[in-house]
Amino acid sequence: MNDFVYHIPTKVYFGKDQLGNLGEELKQFGQRVLLVYGGGSIKRNGLYDRVMAELKQAGLDVFELSGVDPNPRVASVNKGAEICKREKIDVLLAVGGGSTIDATKFIGAAAYYDGDAWDLVIRKAPITNCLPIVTILTLAATGSEMDAGGVISNPETREKLVCGHPALLPRVSFLDPTNTYSVSAFQTACGSADIMSHIFEVYFTMDEDLYMLDCVMEGLLKTVIKYTPIAIKEPANYEARANLMWASSWAINGFVNGGKQKAWSCHPLEHELSAFYDITHGLGLAILTPRWMEYALNETTVSKFYQFGCNVFDMDKNMEPMLVAKKSIELLSEFFFKTIGLQSTLSEIGIDDTHFSEMARKACKGDVLAGFKPLKQQDIEKIYRMCL
Amino acid sequence: MNDFVYHIPTKVYFGKDQLGNLGEELKQFGQRVLLVYGGGSIKRNGLYDRVMAELKQAGLDVFELSGVDPNPRVASVNKGAEICKREKIDVLLAVGGGSTIDATKFIGAAAYYDGDAWDLVIRKAPITNCLPIVTILTLAATGSEMDAGGVISNPETREKLVCGHPALLPRVSFLDPTNTYSVSAFQTACGSADIMSHIFEVYFTMDEDLYMLDCVMEGLLKTVIKYTPIAIKEPANYEARANLMWASSWAINGFVNGGKQKAWSCHPLEHELSAFYDITHGLGLAILTPRWMEYALNETTVSKFYQFGCNVFDMDKNMEPMLVAKKSIELLSEFFFKTIGLQSTLSEIGIDDTHFSEMARKACKGDVLAGFKPLKQQDIEKIYRMCL
Repeated sequence: MNDFVYHIPTKVYFGKDQLGNLGEELKQFGQRVLLVYGGGSIKRNGLYDRVMAELKQAGLDVFELSGVDPNPRVASVNKGAEICKREKIDVLLAVGGGSTIDATKFIGAAAYYDGDAWDLVIRKAPITNCLPIVTILTLAATGSEMDAGGVISNPETREKLVCGHPALLPRVSFLDPTNTYSVSAFQTACGSADIMSHIFEVYFTMDEDLYMLDCVMEGLLKTVIKYTPIAIKEPANYEARANLMWASSWAINGFVNGGKQKAWSCHPLEHELSAFYDITHGLGLAILTPRWMEYALNETTVSKFYQFGCNVFDMDKNMEPMLVAKKSIELLSEFFFKTIGLQSTLSEIGIDDTHFSEMARKACKGDVLAGFKPLKQQDIEKIYRMCL
Repeated sequence: MNDFVYHIPTKVYFGKDQLGNLGEELKQFGQRVLLVYGGGSIKRNGLYDRVMAELKQAGLDVFELSGVDPNPRVASVNKGAEICKREKIDVLLAVGGGSTIDATKFIGAAAYYDGDAWDLVIRKAPITNCLPIVTILTLAATGSEMDAGGVISNPETREKLVCGHPALLPRVSFLDPTNTYSVSAFQTACGSADIMSHIFEVYFTMDEDLYMLDCVMEGLLKTVIKYTPIAIKEPANYEARANLMWASSWAINGFVNGGKQKAWSCHPLEHELSAFYDITHGLGLAILTPRWMEYALNETTVSKFYQFGCNVFDMDKNMEPMLVAKKSIELLSEFFFKTIGLQSTLSEIGIDDTHFSEMARKACKGDVLAGFKPLKQQDIEKIYRMCL
């Protein structure tokens, strides 16, 4: 069991009547705010107006950067960093999902760097500091509101890379489940697949487990399985949205990791998919995960799948472990592809095997992807093919 | 479902090789350290020497306050606050269990107050500030290492009171499971009863639940039930000690509360027991809890006990809910009084009904103790009698 440091100082305002605290929280960091958001959804659902009213009431100077895309690009980051330098921004306010928050993190870091922000993502230059970040979350998925990492894409190099630094951790996050009422059934399902994958990446490892954290992860998985279909059927079900929202933060804020080595599998495979095809991250994960599980299941790993089946899907502990394992993967597929209605194959979303070889090589960086089952390029290619 | 704020900035170093970070962490707060500890156990097990070596290496000026008792008294707090003022202490280092850490919290607060520290505990005077606190935990029980509250006793008034303030939250806590290897079987069992009670106080409430947090609480309970007997049998079992230690922090750092009103039952009842008889807090809780559960179980509350029985004790979901409920209380009694060997009645530990009436009146402050089942003085007296 490895030693670890747990430190998540993000202050979270959770619930439906918390926005009145926004002005005060921002003002502790300064006067000049850069508001970062994506497309027009926050204008359509009224959140933009409510936020602006709070900022106005607090007497803050507001600058804006809109148009941050899903799978946010480094171009948006550079644009935001320029505004920060030019306008001497004191604090960043990200209103949106993981993409907006991720972009904001690198804007905050790039504000302290003279050069292309991509240098920070590829670690050519170190992140030294970051402007304070406040977030208002509108999608339960990436957990970016309470962690210190982000994912940035570079369409020119077809790269989508993860990078983190303690300075990127949001100082304050507003989690209002009602802000996710307008999330579509498809995006809700993709968000849940992302949350579950964050947990799977930690749960299915060969590192020694802290039993307590396995229990927590199983509880989070059960929560997502219980409430995703409800949120899809009743988009304004507060209980469902609240459970999904808080689960999304705790799936990836570091708590469940408890000293395990970070050796993720499905995420690197998916990042290549969305780098090449710009698909929704959670959809890619849903398609990949059951195939990766089938590929990873063997006599060594079966015990973990057995634990998963018994504790998450409530399967009979007296059944043969290998049967429980296989059935648990089937149940997960059924959940992704029937219960919450995601597409089940890459073919269905227009992806063929053209780039599999290159994607596989990039995913393992031409070497071996460490993890529950270490994967070489040929293994990854096989998993991609299983998804066709 | 109530709104809530989640904010636990305590930095936790978890594991067996973390003490090397102690000097650096302390130095960020200043040069002059007051080391607070209890009896001689940290001298006997070598922890005192290891801590002093780190402090020396860091070149810090160290002052000492030893002799903090279990159920710490306000006299120790006043003594510590005097040292802080006289010696211009910059930072407090608590080495011990919950009692030592609780006393340290009020020393830190009383250092900013001219007068008897008891005024702060009874809220006659407000807590305005607190010296920075660093802790090294030696007992998995109270969760004081990661929360902002404490319990202080006043033998003169026979009072034992809970009080909290955000400023009391430890800045840094070192959780090394090996520091609990020397904890006796009895104290290990009492610590576990305390951890479980912290969870029960939140789990068994009439407030609307966040399902996700119920799952987490059930996981923490299963963790304590699984590992307490192991830690008792094999005191140096790292896995068992690690699980109990981390569970103790998360049982009461506020995470599992998720906006529920704080309306505790067994703790106020127990605080009167230990205020009058100076018994170990966890033992009092173990004796009280199953009786309180029996008293609270009825047609309205049965569903929560059913959930408890099914999810924590893995009972058959098809059984009659009331049967599951009753059986779950039996299983808990069996755990406390057989599996981990605690005394099962007040009579056994020399307590009779002499003060029940006064204790009951104090526990509900002459009114009604809100909670899962609201308790008046006569209800509380009945529960005490059930414990005889």
